[in-house]
Amino acid sequence: MIRVIGIDPGLRNMGWGVIDVAGSRITHVANGICQSEGADLATRLLSLHAQLTRIMVTYRPDAAAVEQTFVNKDGAGTLKLGQARGIAMLVPAQAGLAVGEYAPNTVKKTVVGVGHADKGQVLHMVRMQLPGAEIAGPDAADALAIAICHAHHGGASTLAQAVARASA
Amino acid sequence: MIRVIGIDPGLRNMGWGVIDVAGSRITHVANGICQSEGADLATRLLSLHAQLTRIMVTYRPDAAAVEQTFVNKDGAGTLKLGQARGIAMLVPAQAGLAVGEYAPNTVKKTVVGVGHADKGQVLHMVRMQLPGAEIAGPDAADALAIAICHAHHGGASTLAQAVARASA
Repeated sequence: MIRVIGIDPGLRNMGWGVIDVAGSRITHVANGICQSEGADLATRLLSLHAQLTRIMVTYRPDAAAVEQTFVNKDGAGTLKLGQARGIAMLVPAQAGLAVGEYAPNTVKKTVVGVGHADKGQVLHMVRMQLPGAEIAGPDAADALAIAICHAHHGGASTLAQAVARASA
Repeated sequence: MIRVIGIDPGLRNMGWGVIDVAGSRITHVANGICQSEGADLATRLLSLHAQLTRIMVTYRPDAAAVEQTFVNKDGAGTLKLGQARGIAMLVPAQAGLAVGEYAPNTVKKTVVGVGHADKGQVLHMVRMQLPGAEIAGPDAADALAIAICHAHHGGASTLAQAVARASA
């Protein structure tokens, strides 16, 4: 069994979701949203780092994946998101995990079947694949979708490496 | 005396510079460039985090400032820089420091006297203000300029707070 964490990066709301993968069977473990606290950027990034680190310590995933941020025309927004994404990439790397990256369209195509699905469709399909899971919100659903995507795409090699590392 | 670190964020080259400030007197302590190593983004961010953390532990600054990244039309470039900047903001925050932020024009105006100075002018003025300092390269000179800018602008309140924290 492999435990996978997916992270949907954002400065205000950072979604996360943890699943267990055994062959083709996927089980929900936990999900939530880290909200950055603090008056200034450094404090908010510190808060996100502390919350994500606590999640890594609590759930001890074997593999991690982070959504590739959508680069838009709003440079300031892209920069903010980039800074949050830096933290989202750093924390699993600090735990010794390889960090997969998936474009939003790849995640949607894997989970919903089409690349242009909206948030509602993603939430619906995540609920279908993880029956009984209480989902903290759209960002948490996206994070679970990223974890599911990684389980599908990560393939034998990455995940086997993760397990080898975890059991080393 | 207050010790200030300035950081010029970049994914490939992260400049840093440490100065001591006593009233209007500024002394060079150290400077350098962290180069990110690793095949993938997470590993590179981890490498930058480790190097910057080592610098904080070695030089124990009381205050920190990071350059506000220039947002350009290249969204992918902005995102990369943002991720590196997230690490540059996080590390001093983890050391308990408030992190000042200055736009490139403010830094140049403070150090050179004009907001549109080029890298050569910044290097020249940093050399003038820190005689005898061996400067590791343009990114390190920019980082020292940010530290000098913070010493000028940080004012009594921020730096006094830093010292209060440092001696608490």
